[in-house]
Amino acid sequence: MGVVLNLDGKRGAASVASLVGLTSDEMGRVNELILSKAGSDVDLIPELAKHLIDSGGKRLRPMVTLAAAQMFGYAGEGHVKLATSVEFMHTATLLHDDVVDESDLRRGRKTARMIWGNQASVLVGDFLLGQAFRMMVDVGSLEALDILSAAAAVIAEGEVMQLGVAKNLETTEDDYLAVIKAKTAALFSAAAEVGPVIAEASRNDRAALRSYGTNLGLAFQLVDDALDYGGKSSDLGKNVGDDFREGKVTLPVILSYRRGSAEERAFWKGAIEENQSDDAALEKAIGLMKRNGAIGDTIARARHFGEIARDALAPLPQTPQKDALLDVIDFCISRVM
Amino acid sequence: MGVVLNLDGKRGAASVASLVGLTSDEMGRVNELILSKAGSDVDLIPELAKHLIDSGGKRLRPMVTLAAAQMFGYAGEGHVKLATSVEFMHTATLLHDDVVDESDLRRGRKTARMIWGNQASVLVGDFLLGQAFRMMVDVGSLEALDILSAAAAVIAEGEVMQLGVAKNLETTEDDYLAVIKAKTAALFSAAAEVGPVIAEASRNDRAALRSYGTNLGLAFQLVDDALDYGGKSSDLGKNVGDDFREGKVTLPVILSYRRGSAEERAFWKGAIEENQSDDAALEKAIGLMKRNGAIGDTIARARHFGEIARDALAPLPQTPQKDALLDVIDFCISRVM
Repeated sequence: MGVVLNLDGKRGAASVASLVGLTSDEMGRVNELILSKAGSDVDLIPELAKHLIDSGGKRLRPMVTLAAAQMFGYAGEGHVKLATSVEFMHTATLLHDDVVDESDLRRGRKTARMIWGNQASVLVGDFLLGQAFRMMVDVGSLEALDILSAAAAVIAEGEVMQLGVAKNLETTEDDYLAVIKAKTAALFSAAAEVGPVIAEASRNDRAALRSYGTNLGLAFQLVDDALDYGGKSSDLGKNVGDDFREGKVTLPVILSYRRGSAEERAFWKGAIEENQSDDAALEKAIGLMKRNGAIGDTIARARHFGEIARDALAPLPQTPQKDALLDVIDFCISRVM
Repeated sequence: MGVVLNLDGKRGAASVASLVGLTSDEMGRVNELILSKAGSDVDLIPELAKHLIDSGGKRLRPMVTLAAAQMFGYAGEGHVKLATSVEFMHTATLLHDDVVDESDLRRGRKTARMIWGNQASVLVGDFLLGQAFRMMVDVGSLEALDILSAAAAVIAEGEVMQLGVAKNLETTEDDYLAVIKAKTAALFSAAAEVGPVIAEASRNDRAALRSYGTNLGLAFQLVDDALDYGGKSSDLGKNVGDDFREGKVTLPVILSYRRGSAEERAFWKGAIEENQSDDAALEKAIGLMKRNGAIGDTIARARHFGEIARDALAPLPQTPQKDALLDVIDFCISRVM
């Protein structure tokens, strides 16, 4: 799921530089809170947590929470705690995902489970989730708690759904969208919505940010899926072909399989269902996808959701925060081109 | 952790019959809520949840929550939701525990991970935890949320602590008590405390129930540990020797090791650290424990905590609920004799 974002701001409009700028003070406090709430007398917990913190995730989700709270004039400190909770929920998901997917590497580094084992990864994930809820409770907003706890259940539901579609090439695009809506978009949606919630903004404003988050999350995941078949490894901290080697059925694969000839489908069956996924097979897969437009159309779908995210924010007055959130959409999509 | 309780009420005072009687209406609603909140369009989730629900746990924790709320005159329906949340938290812990311990059987039945795999067990555990939080949020008591979310983090911390003492025979009794206080007693404590909290009882009443729960939990776990070296399998739904075969360092082992001769310690090293734990070794282990009093003294320690639990409730007026909660202490301890 996660990719390293390019945060140097040199890509013009398509960057997260303005979001980083607007939230840098508060992100400093988020980082402090991450370190303090990942602390424990049980040494393994801060050790493992530090590994995750140093792993180069750029914390897009908490920045979205902070900007969304700022946007509606929130003045307290609750958004910093909610942003940290969001990041902890994300981190717990990554820990459990790596166990479920039996992943060895994440962002080019050994996964926690390869260093400390599956057991510690499961349990430290549970700990971080517990700490996330404690922080939310501390903020005291039952509405924010409702949104984030619902997201926690939906994310897990999405991951279970994903087990069901695993290695199943007959998965439809709709099925796949339902999976990523739950496993990825639900947290973006909650991260964005709790901003206006804690700022006591209107129902419409909440709905706008929720819709922005959902569609940004969908676009983000689809671009991530496309990158797996075409990004540059060094740029992205993600190795091309990771999903392919794990036999993951993502949208580029779904499209390529459905559009393929009988012979091509046989190739996909071998690759995805029978692990015939060496470097030569990867090269062939990328070739097929380019020919039948599967990668380009995955990006086109992402752009579609990006447009919905953009329109979701359209009625809101122009503010630096709104501009920054719009830039994030462009950034998410442009990183693939 | 879990053992099947004898609920037929034929053991006289040392039974949970009065607790079952006092809470039976509400437990009916808890059971309905369990089924409905474990529901999902993702078939695997209700399937796996049903397996757990049918697995014969007798739901001591939610009954404690219900009785503790009744005791202070609570009249609403929030305690049913909190009791269900407590049971979901417990179930999520069992699912993750079985993955972490690589357990094949629980209460004489195949564990979920043996049927649906580790992946589903991790993720459905996450889902149930998310649903537990949603129900708590629905009740709307920030105090109850605070108590239960803190318990969730502490339980996970205790499980990680237990990884640290795994296979380490030099673990002290104090270290071990710290582990079970976190991994087992914290949930009993929270289950008991949220009763008076939701009933808006006094600070002292909350503290009494919290202390009752903590010490009941400690007694419960220690008796469970003793049973592993002496209970009758058919009675308990737990197979004698499970902990031994998994190389778990529990209090009977700690005491037996510390009290043993050099030769006996070498035996324990082989059994616990090097998996020399066949049936002959188990028989020898039980023989050593009987000779050096390790089992009897584990039960004595359990009785000590049972007494503290009893005194915690002493200042409260006599009510059927109080009597039932006191019976539970006796029941927990007597099931070993």
